[in-house]
Formats: sequence, structure tokens, C-alpha cells
Amino acid sequence: MQLSAIYKPVREDLVKVEKELELVSKVDFPWLAELLGYSLKSEGKAIRPALTLLAGKLYHYRLDNLLPMAMATELLHVATLIHDDAIDKSPVRRSKPTVYKVWGEDKAVLLGDYLFAKAGELTTVTQNIRVVKLFTQTLRVIATGELAQIFDAYNLEQTYQQYIQRISNKTAALFILAVESGAVLSEAPEVSIKILNEYGYNLGIAFQIVDDILDFIGTEKEVGKPIGSDLAQGTLTLPSMLLLERYPEDNPVKRLFQNRDRQEEIKLAIEQVRDSSIIEECYTVASDYCDRACRRLILLPDNASRQSLTETANYVIRRKK
Amino acid sequence: MQLSAIYKPVREDLVKVEKELELVSKVDFPWLAELLGYSLKSEGKAIRPALTLLAGKLYHYRLDNLLPMAMATELLHVATLIHDDAIDKSPVRRSKPTVYKVWGEDKAVLLGDYLFAKAGELTTVTQNIRVVKLFTQTLRVIATGELAQIFDAYNLEQTYQQYIQRISNKTAALFILAVESGAVLSEAPEVSIKILNEYGYNLGIAFQIVDDILDFIGTEKEVGKPIGSDLAQGTLTLPSMLLLERYPEDNPVKRLFQNRDRQEEIKLAIEQVRDSSIIEECYTVASDYCDRACRRLILLPDNASRQSLTETANYVIRRKK
Repeated sequence: MQLSAIYKPVREDLVKVEKELELVSKVDFPWLAELLGYSLKSEGKAIRPALTLLAGKLYHYRLDNLLPMAMATELLHVATLIHDDAIDKSPVRRSKPTVYKVWGEDKAVLLGDYLFAKAGELTTVTQNIRVVKLFTQTLRVIATGELAQIFDAYNLEQTYQQYIQRISNKTAALFILAVESGAVLSEAPEVSIKILNEYGYNLGIAFQIVDDILDFIGTEKEVGKPIGSDLAQGTLTLPSMLLLERYPEDNPVKRLFQNRDRQEEIKLAIEQVRDSSIIEECYTVASDYCDRACRRLILLPDNASRQSLTETANYVIRRKK
Repeated sequence: MQLSAIYKPVREDLVKVEKELELVSKVDFPWLAELLGYSLKSEGKAIRPALTLLAGKLYHYRLDNLLPMAMATELLHVATLIHDDAIDKSPVRRSKPTVYKVWGEDKAVLLGDYLFAKAGELTTVTQNIRVVKLFTQTLRVIATGELAQIFDAYNLEQTYQQYIQRISNKTAALFILAVESGAVLSEAPEVSIKILNEYGYNLGIAFQIVDDILDFIGTEKEVGKPIGSDLAQGTLTLPSMLLLERYPEDNPVKRLFQNRDRQEEIKLAIEQVRDSSIIEECYTVASDYCDRACRRLILLPDNASRQSLTETANYVIRRKK
């Protein structure tokens, strides 16, 4: 099933979110308008704002609240990507040059700050202090996860638990924000909010594991950025962890992390992972998380949106970009 | 009058703010705790949290609300400095190496993000959506001001109005947040909130003009960072604008901006400014803003805090660091 079909229960309102996001770039300063326009062209999967609207559709759907919140989750996502690219010095994302590449690190940092602020401002439109707080906590958790990734760069002694904790912080937190804020703003009962929180967590972990898989088996054209970029940054992910486990002695990842900057080791690691059953194992782990995400959805109101949440989980495993 | 004497009406509570700020660095991850501990050691003037408390003392003083808000204004300030230093590649601030210098640009960016989030989270403790919104707007305005500064770097064609607009965004906005949030949280009448907003604006402009003066006439020991750093960044401030106006042809600032990276031009510009009446003129402008800041304070409740607000304005002109 295509994403557009999955989003059907909220498709029209998602278009409104995208239109409103484009309006964010209408500001007085021409140079800021240019930066914003470049960053906010809707080329992503819009999965986070869709989740906010879908979660909201389970209870008392109020677009006046959900629209700014959905915008905020997407802007927070965009802002973190802009900072990540500046930090990693990544030249390409979603098949186009990054803000960092075009305008430089200084402007990328400040544009990210601007978008964090704008996102926060949008959450206050809901007049709901609980979701505003959740938003700020999410940003704090994401920054913690990104810091952990940098501090753990080129560290071969990482456990599976550390990996899960890290991707929980840097990725799942935003999925939790997306669904939980939708639930809170549509006055879902606490038990349902809890179920959607778990859905967001597990879906987010699965999403990131698939991201980490695609960094080994994807194509640059599909993924929109160079393959092997995690290894190039010294970031250990599930596939490379399993490769280390499988070949503890003669291992390209080990050599890469010890000597840095050796393009041929990255190539070799990718080949070895592709030629093994590691990818299959990684997909099994990701699928388990997706199953866990969906397990308790049955306790939520039975409507088209609930079905879409399940299908989103299936999509997350299947996706090629 | 010393700052400690000016702060007298809120001195004990300001100590509580500083103690609570130190607790922000008590987190699980040792490397994050180290970064936070380094950044949050109270060595600044604490002028912004003091303003929040002083403004709060004019009406229904509630420390449970004012304490997290005062912390938030200080954290927002610290976070913007950390990002600024990373962007400007500044090695020293407050006489110690910057986070950028010690840990690198990537960690400085993420630490700033973490602190923005933490500050935002603290504003939600007040349960007051109005001050949360004001906080997010302030961050957005500051980022806009910083971007303006970068886009205007090495641009000789800047008007006085552009300069005031820029420092209003990058500096005065935070002073406004500090006093206005204190007023809102202590249930000040709208007319008083407006008066304190104007106070914050004018005080902030004066504060930045003095900052810009000190970058010409201060000593590195007092100011805590190299003198002439604005010119080194290509940033035109009031003293250099007046110098350009005075000597439109043979001018070291003009040559510096046209050719970049010429240390001797910076030295020359500093000497010419010091040997002229420009500093006096700049102080006159700053003093005018301080007068404007205080003009309508007389309409506020007559207590020791109101007196402290006036004395803070005097201090801002007098200060050497």
C-alpha cells in the first residue's frame, strides 16, 4: 500500500499542513525567506505530521489544535536534520544539497534554531501546556541522543542496549511526540495515550533500524544520500554491530574504527553485510518492534485511522527510502 | 552601586536560581554532565534572571513560577552564547575557553540545542502558556537577529536603523522576555506589562551599545574576550558606523571590509575610535536609551524593586565588563 493510500483518513488535512508549512517561509527578510523556502519544500514522507492527525482521528478530532501540532512535529524534524547535516558535514539529503552545503555551517545552525523556535511557538497555539512540555522534552531527548552518537563515535565497545537507547532518543522520541500529542489534543483517555506512546516508541525504533539497514543495502538514488554514511561518521548501527559479532577478529568495521578514513573498509563492510544473513536478522528485529507497536492498537477505537496506524507500521518495514 | 547591592530585593532568591541552575548538570550521562557543568558555572552577571525576579517583585511575587522562568531566561542566554561562539569560532568567553574550543563545533551545537530545550521545558513549569509563547518567540527573534548579523557581515551599506533592529533582535528581545515574563507571572496589569516591555527593550538596546563600545575601549582581561572581535567578524556596530561616517574615504573599517583579514586595520580602527569623540557619542546614545527605559517606571508600584530596575539601567551604562 502506498503512503498516500495509508494517509487516506487525513489526506485533505495533511495537504493543509503542507500548505501551512510553506507559509512559514513567508517572512520579511528576503534571505531568511530563501533559506526557509529551501528547507520547507515538502519532499519528505510527512510521516510524523500524518501520525499526529491519524492519532487525533481516533477521538475528538479538532483540526485547529492538531494542525499547528502536526506542523510543529515536522518542523522539529526538519530542524534536527539541518543541525545533523551541519554537524556531520553532509553534502546531500533527500537528493538535494543540504543547507550546510549551500549556505555553510553558521547559517545552518541558526536556521535550525529558528525552526526549533517556530515549532515551539506553534505548539503554544494549542493552548495545551501538556503537549508543549512534551515537545520541549522531546527536543531535549533528541539532543541527548545525538550527543551520545557523537561521544560514541568510533567506539567498538557498544552494547545492543546502548544502540537501542540511542535510537530511542534520537528517533523514537519524535514518533512518540507525533502520536502522543495527537492523542492528548483529541482528548484520548489516559490508557489510550499510553498505548499510542508505546506505538510511537516501537514504530520509531523499527523506523531507525530500517534506516540503518538502508544505509547498507539501499541505493544513493533511493535513499537520497550516500550509502555507508553511518560508518563514515563512525556510527555503529545494528548491521555493523552484528558484523562485528560475527567476525570478531578480521573485521573491516574494526579496522575502520581503529584507523579512520579508510573508504575501502566501508566498501568491504557493506559487501560483507550484504553477503550475509545480517540484513535478514536486522529486518526480523525491526519487524518485532513493528509487531509490538501494533499489538495493543486493537484496544483503541476501531476506525479507518486505527487501520492506517497498522499500515504505517507495515510501510516502515517495507520502505526503500 | 555594585550589582549585588542592586539585586538586594531578590538576592536570596537569585542564589536559589543559581543553585538550581547548577543542578541542571546533574544528568545520567557523565559526558553530558561534564559539558553542562562547564557551561553552567555561574560566572555571568545574572542580569536576566535578576530582572525576572525584580519585575515579579512589583506585584504578586510567586517564586514557584518565577524561579523556573528566571532559570529559563539564563539558560536561553547561555545556549545562544554557546551557538554564537561555535558560529564565530570564538576561542574565549568570560576569560575561559569556549565549549566550541574545548569540545568542538558539533558538541557545541548539540549542547546549545539541549539547553534551548531545557529552558523551554522550564517555562512550562509555570503552566502559563503566555510566557511559554513569549519564550519561543524570543528564541525565534534572536535567531533572526543572529542571521541578520551574518548576512550583513562585511557589508558597509548599513543604516543606523538596521543596526538598532539587529541588536533589538539579538539582544533586547531577551531583556524583554526577562522582565515581561516576570510581570506576567506576577499578574501585573496589562499597562504595567507594557511599561516593563518598553523598559526591557530600551535597556537591552543600551546594554548592547555598551557591549559594542567595550569591544573598542575595554581590555581583554575585563571583557573576558579579545577586543575588536566585532570587526574581526565583519560586524558593523555603532562605533565603527560613526567612524565610517566621519572618515568616508580613508578609513580602516572600509579597507578591512573590502580586503578582510587585516589585523592592522582593526588595530587602526580601534585607535581612531579611541582618539575621537565617537565613544562619547555612543555613550550618549546608550544613555538616551537608558533614560527611555526608566522614564515610565514611575507609573509602577513604588518599592525597592522598582528602584533596583532604575539602578540596573545605571549599571548597564557604567559597566566595564
